[in-house]
Amino acid sequence: MLKGNAVVFTQGGPTAVINATWVGVVEGLMNAAEVTGIWGALNGIDGILKENFVDLSGQNIHTINAITRTPGSQLFSTRHKPKPEDNAKMLSVFQKHNIRYVFGIGGNDTSESLDIINDAAREREYELRLFHVAKTVDCDLVENDHTPGYGSAARFVANAFRGVDLDNQCFGGFYLGVCMGRHAGFLTAASALGRTTPDSGPHLIYLPERPFDLDRFCQDVEEVYRRHGRCVVAVSEGIENKEHVPILQVLSGGKLEADSHGNVQLSGTGALADALVEHVKRYLEGKGVVKKLRARGDTLGYLQRSFPDQSPVDREEALGIGKFAAKMALSGNIDGSCAIHRVSDQPYRVEFRLLPLKAVAGKTKRMPDDFINAAGNNVTPAFLAWGKPLIGELYEFGMLDYSKKPRLG
Amino acid sequence: MLKGNAVVFTQGGPTAVINATWVGVVEGLMNAAEVTGIWGALNGIDGILKENFVDLSGQNIHTINAITRTPGSQLFSTRHKPKPEDNAKMLSVFQKHNIRYVFGIGGNDTSESLDIINDAAREREYELRLFHVAKTVDCDLVENDHTPGYGSAARFVANAFRGVDLDNQCFGGFYLGVCMGRHAGFLTAASALGRTTPDSGPHLIYLPERPFDLDRFCQDVEEVYRRHGRCVVAVSEGIENKEHVPILQVLSGGKLEADSHGNVQLSGTGALADALVEHVKRYLEGKGVVKKLRARGDTLGYLQRSFPDQSPVDREEALGIGKFAAKMALSGNIDGSCAIHRVSDQPYRVEFRLLPLKAVAGKTKRMPDDFINAAGNNVTPAFLAWGKPLIGELYEFGMLDYSKKPRLG
Repeated sequence: MLKGNAVVFTQGGPTAVINATWVGVVEGLMNAAEVTGIWGALNGIDGILKENFVDLSGQNIHTINAITRTPGSQLFSTRHKPKPEDNAKMLSVFQKHNIRYVFGIGGNDTSESLDIINDAAREREYELRLFHVAKTVDCDLVENDHTPGYGSAARFVANAFRGVDLDNQCFGGFYLGVCMGRHAGFLTAASALGRTTPDSGPHLIYLPERPFDLDRFCQDVEEVYRRHGRCVVAVSEGIENKEHVPILQVLSGGKLEADSHGNVQLSGTGALADALVEHVKRYLEGKGVVKKLRARGDTLGYLQRSFPDQSPVDREEALGIGKFAAKMALSGNIDGSCAIHRVSDQPYRVEFRLLPLKAVAGKTKRMPDDFINAAGNNVTPAFLAWGKPLIGELYEFGMLDYSKKPRLG
Repeated sequence: MLKGNAVVFTQGGPTAVINATWVGVVEGLMNAAEVTGIWGALNGIDGILKENFVDLSGQNIHTINAITRTPGSQLFSTRHKPKPEDNAKMLSVFQKHNIRYVFGIGGNDTSESLDIINDAAREREYELRLFHVAKTVDCDLVENDHTPGYGSAARFVANAFRGVDLDNQCFGGFYLGVCMGRHAGFLTAASALGRTTPDSGPHLIYLPERPFDLDRFCQDVEEVYRRHGRCVVAVSEGIENKEHVPILQVLSGGKLEADSHGNVQLSGTGALADALVEHVKRYLEGKGVVKKLRARGDTLGYLQRSFPDQSPVDREEALGIGKFAAKMALSGNIDGSCAIHRVSDQPYRVEFRLLPLKAVAGKTKRMPDDFINAAGNNVTPAFLAWGKPLIGELYEFGMLDYSKKPRLG
């Protein structure tokens, strides 16, 4: 039995449920005799380097419960990846405070960092229990069916598109929403999870897993618009053409303005949505399909990862994977990455698994081929079946029966 | 007793609860002997002109109940304002089908249109009962304490800012969100309704009711950033400088691109948020306040009016004002505009009132002075007290007690 303090920290972009995961770790460690104290490092590994800790075992239990429902990370975060000198410094801090249990909650960057710290500890022969706990709204960790944080972000995207689609029905026209996901399309694909009828939008979905062709895109939109008098589209921020040129760069024809550091910004702004909308407008109006297109582009932005309306399933899993990590640490495991494995679809059931750290570190999962239709402009029923259990029940809705016509006098 | 058919329609931008209002009208008329049929005109007055009706009295009751929870308008909408020849045509349609009860749900444009139709009916001596029912997320109707639709949009904005503020805490930096409201700042002000602590964002709020000064804005941001290491800002899409030049135009220095009709677009895109963020970045980095500012601008867009998470208070009031309109029509009133009057703040209580159509028509309400602080960069406690009852309970949340430090060895 290795006796010492435990530290938990969060890295990278926060999610709506990341707090639930560290709460799970704390709950899982709370009564263990070998754990002398449970600390949170503030701002990820920076908190370790700066010895900036908060005592988590002494917090009010009602507060802790409420924190599982709070988006963002109450432990704050960093995107700092440790350099060799940081590893040495971290190990000194661990030794100084007899920190023996370390839990890092994050994406593949975090598992990579933890793997490096782990190697450094072994080299120094400092006994450590070190665990990565999966987290990312992008859902792009290999060996994970999905990741804590994805379900809530996907719920937001599904609700957002359900709402804008019902809005778009009112006037017709064109609506395009840009979703997070530079390399993986899972979050953009979630726009399909709120569809209410066979004619519901989003009618077209473009993912970074497939090359994006501007001409083909315009033809797709025209076809939908001619059929429905409207068209709702979801697009990943990471779409590129077949030569891997980001679409915003293609559309701007080299006219992109540099930011104050001289860098050209290709995401994190509203520019892609606006440029695609303007492109479609010129195309449909130029071809005479419509005289003046009602058109709007929105960029869903940070709300995707921070909106407070959690998926209950996601919250439970985020809490559960944290408890699982604590249990793994207390039951003799040395290290590993805690992942979600799906046991069955119907009924939906998952289990947590401990993988080697190196299995996850630094790799990116993309949407499987059977989740994307042959034309590369929509998701498949297989994706819908996979995604629906993750987002919880959506808000109730009802649709008028338009076939009921009054008898006109 | 005037016997005939009733028609209800919705105009302008939909809201999350506009369906509840027409459902209220239908419920209110359902058992009235003088009402022979209850029809919905599809796409506002266009549905009357084209005799495009749906029978609302014959719909499934469970569907109707579910529709009160559905955003967007199931009766669709239009921004078409009737021309003189349209009024004549509409009256012919009313006569042809013996339509005697007309309910138009919309903003001040709609009340103006209804007023004109009303005058035309009187001129032709066609007996009509004609009612405007308030609706707008902008909350800018005179003689209304607030309007159905505002509470749900405000709830979305409050939740969005609560979430992004908790997100912004994780890394620090600058976040700016642009909210709807070209002339009235009520919706932007709602960003303050989700604040969780005295240090919570949004730290600064800029409304169209006050001239926007770019230098003053930068100084405000710098002051907050120096104090908190971060700054969250809410801005109305309608902000202008003291010469009434839209801020996007000021920032672009005449370099704005025209759309496919040659019009320069000043709202409805992500450009204002992006330009303000870039301006702040250059200012803070140029002054050496921070080397590289983490900064992001989001434009909340259509989600503000269409997100499916309704305020329960708003839904009840939207339903109630529809029932009230029906009751007014059945109790001998000729015409009028149905409005919300606040009876008391604590406990929160409202009543519906029937105003003359001309009292509301074509006027715009702006934020009262006592809702805006002296510096013109925030809201007051009076605004918070007014706004909080309208948005319903927000999601539960909890905050860590950072004063609990572990005893370091």
